[in-house]
Amino acid sequence: MMTAAPSPVMEHLDAFRRIVGEKFVFVDEEVLHQYAHDETEDLRFLPDIVLKPGTAQEISEILKICNQFKIPVTPRGGGTGLSGGALPHLGGVLLSTDRLNRIIDIDDRNLQVTTEPGVITEVLQNAVKEKGLFYPPDPSSRGTCFIGGNIAENSGGPKAVKYGVVKDYVLNLEVVLPTGEIIWTGANVLKNATGYNLTQLLVGSEGTLGIVTKAVLKLLPLPKLDLLMLVPFKNPVDACAAVSAIFAAGFVPSAMEFMERDAIEWSMRYVDNCIVPLDEDTQAHLLIEVDGNDMDVLMKEMEGISEVVMRYDCGEILFAEDAQQKAELWKLRRRVAEAVKSHSVYKEEDTVVPRAELPVLLKGVKEIGKKYGFHSVCYGHAGDGNLHVNIIRGDLTDEQWTGSLKNGIVEIFHLVKSLGGTISGEHGIGLVQKEYLPIVFEPVQMRLMQQIKSIFDPNNILNAGKIFD
Amino acid sequence: MMTAAPSPVMEHLDAFRRIVGEKFVFVDEEVLHQYAHDETEDLRFLPDIVLKPGTAQEISEILKICNQFKIPVTPRGGGTGLSGGALPHLGGVLLSTDRLNRIIDIDDRNLQVTTEPGVITEVLQNAVKEKGLFYPPDPSSRGTCFIGGNIAENSGGPKAVKYGVVKDYVLNLEVVLPTGEIIWTGANVLKNATGYNLTQLLVGSEGTLGIVTKAVLKLLPLPKLDLLMLVPFKNPVDACAAVSAIFAAGFVPSAMEFMERDAIEWSMRYVDNCIVPLDEDTQAHLLIEVDGNDMDVLMKEMEGISEVVMRYDCGEILFAEDAQQKAELWKLRRRVAEAVKSHSVYKEEDTVVPRAELPVLLKGVKEIGKKYGFHSVCYGHAGDGNLHVNIIRGDLTDEQWTGSLKNGIVEIFHLVKSLGGTISGEHGIGLVQKEYLPIVFEPVQMRLMQQIKSIFDPNNILNAGKIFD
Repeated sequence: MMTAAPSPVMEHLDAFRRIVGEKFVFVDEEVLHQYAHDETEDLRFLPDIVLKPGTAQEISEILKICNQFKIPVTPRGGGTGLSGGALPHLGGVLLSTDRLNRIIDIDDRNLQVTTEPGVITEVLQNAVKEKGLFYPPDPSSRGTCFIGGNIAENSGGPKAVKYGVVKDYVLNLEVVLPTGEIIWTGANVLKNATGYNLTQLLVGSEGTLGIVTKAVLKLLPLPKLDLLMLVPFKNPVDACAAVSAIFAAGFVPSAMEFMERDAIEWSMRYVDNCIVPLDEDTQAHLLIEVDGNDMDVLMKEMEGISEVVMRYDCGEILFAEDAQQKAELWKLRRRVAEAVKSHSVYKEEDTVVPRAELPVLLKGVKEIGKKYGFHSVCYGHAGDGNLHVNIIRGDLTDEQWTGSLKNGIVEIFHLVKSLGGTISGEHGIGLVQKEYLPIVFEPVQMRLMQQIKSIFDPNNILNAGKIFD
Repeated sequence: MMTAAPSPVMEHLDAFRRIVGEKFVFVDEEVLHQYAHDETEDLRFLPDIVLKPGTAQEISEILKICNQFKIPVTPRGGGTGLSGGALPHLGGVLLSTDRLNRIIDIDDRNLQVTTEPGVITEVLQNAVKEKGLFYPPDPSSRGTCFIGGNIAENSGGPKAVKYGVVKDYVLNLEVVLPTGEIIWTGANVLKNATGYNLTQLLVGSEGTLGIVTKAVLKLLPLPKLDLLMLVPFKNPVDACAAVSAIFAAGFVPSAMEFMERDAIEWSMRYVDNCIVPLDEDTQAHLLIEVDGNDMDVLMKEMEGISEVVMRYDCGEILFAEDAQQKAELWKLRRRVAEAVKSHSVYKEEDTVVPRAELPVLLKGVKEIGKKYGFHSVCYGHAGDGNLHVNIIRGDLTDEQWTGSLKNGIVEIFHLVKSLGGTISGEHGIGLVQKEYLPIVFEPVQMRLMQQIKSIFDPNNILNAGKIFD
């Protein structure tokens, strides 16, 4: 007589309850379904159990059990990921960092903040802002994403062009290793030449090497002023070309966002907001911000930037008049991804190239689209050369969508690589991009990364099958 | 009858000559002696052979032989290191990157430079400056140190306080692994969320994981203007306290250097230049620079900073009047290390703490000095919390110098750690600091680093015995 083997996860239910407390252990279908997806396409995978530990020590005890019994563990932050990093595709334990949500210390003497990973990015930004301080990384999902997830994915956002990405702000991390040890990766300092940079190895490792339980982040003095302009272009390629001309002219805007016509049009419809006049012949926009502490300087910068963009056949520039108009323009930009998603099933590719290659990339994406019969909506952080290519399902057949489209994506990524770029600027590789990773890495680098994974996680329990197999 | 075993290195002399060409293989004593030391204390170790390859391919072939026959290889840049990273303490092959000295491409469209590692830092800075571009990291040794060495040590320098250290400028590296494979670590992009950050793992790995043969570095638009001021203080601890007050007031100077009286006094004598009036009651100075593109803004910043420092019992501020005076003040600062070295045998500790802890660190160093009977001259990049503690041999006996002094250094490092800092900000661990590394890392981190080393260098041939055993 055959009986089904008991689920190895469920065998440890009592232990998990003892560790995190009964009310933070979830096995009911409704909760499991909540944690079965993130923001990646329409993918869903049910975990066997959801655990919500409250301390690094509890996470350590959970991981020790999972390591001993080889139970898959998927760590999860805000669940806003776009590459499937938080999808529990192997079942097992879904470990949510929801409860690690304290900002431990805002140190305005040293311009540092120590925080737990489950703090929402915007909450952290606002908390430090109250002390006149500035944490620049601001993904579009900042209202719901977690600092921990931002660290796992090395997130960017609009301000990265002037201020850098998450890796540039992480000074030190407390991390629970898959084997249960709790370590600090570095020190709370701005310069560090003390051993290998474990901190930077953890940043962007997508929850495969350890679970961040505390982060010490660098802060800046808050810039007091900013100005924002929206520039329409008849030709999207011209808009991209204007981007590098602005930097070449010596300006470093605090944001430099590109949107194709569809992006801004769909977003306006989505947020039900028509503040932007959209001429028929406008095919793209640049949203450009400068910030600082001196209004005269900012005005001069806006003037100089205007002169540059006017060399690229732009239309009438809209200068945001007040805080409200700025907020509305930013809302339009931040909601593009949701607008596209509400419009159609889509796949988002997170291409990044040296910024002067953007016009070539954009042209190439459109040509590849024609060849494979797909429509794309492109937008993104043009100042960083980071172009989000949203491939719209539209009328594509199942065969095209799940089959031949892949060849188009491969062509886009080969183009990206040939331009000195790579396949993800800020979304990560996660689950859905891992098949493309060998386009940009040879077997040697793949082997090095896999071996690093083995050092940290000898039993391959933590977010296994993400980034690579 | 016993005969000496033939040197394993010399067995491969013909092969090395074939690979790099006869005239780039050196076995004569004079050359070996030239490469027996760097700038670390008075340490000397003779290599068996010096090789000067001209290409990554040649380095690959050399490393393949050394890997096969387990011959120690010590890579070397400009030889200006202060932790003994380039000392061939195991003999074997000294691999100089002297001949990899081409700036391959200054890309002013993308604000990037691709360079070989043997380019002198100042040469690179000047080359990009001619195109209106700016490579900020500028160690005091910039006139002789190499970009490759800067990458190996994650160097800093005065501008780090505003612009960051070398790691913040390295986008992508071509690296020859100890096993001979040649890889690129990343892509030529400002944002990258594509696999583990091998680039950042290599930066600061002190030549133990691979030999950098090309680097793609980020550049900035060159700031057009700067202003410089020298502020005397009666009390060095007040000077340190003023540092964090300046940042807390919202200023981000482009340099913020601290010098104890001895440092500036010895340096003035060394460079034979007395431009600085040195009152009897002056015990320390801050050298403060602001940079930007608008003179009105800079003047306002200098005014604001002056107001802050005057709250800390400072003397009369010297504002540099012209480019020459600026150059002279900077020369004084840059030559401090040489001046101290010419004055006495010394050991330099490269402590770094969160900047507001500087006053505590400085007081602690002096108290520990009293306890162990040593005099120290302290100076450094105060804006980063990076204090170089120069322990002067003076009248210390051999027993004190090689024996009990170590306990004093251990106390300093424990203090540094307790303040959230670490034992090297920019000089690296190399050979002479490795015994102290376990003060800041537990066995778990030490094991992770050693295992990473094994992945890259399974036969432990490349700069073995540096950072850790």
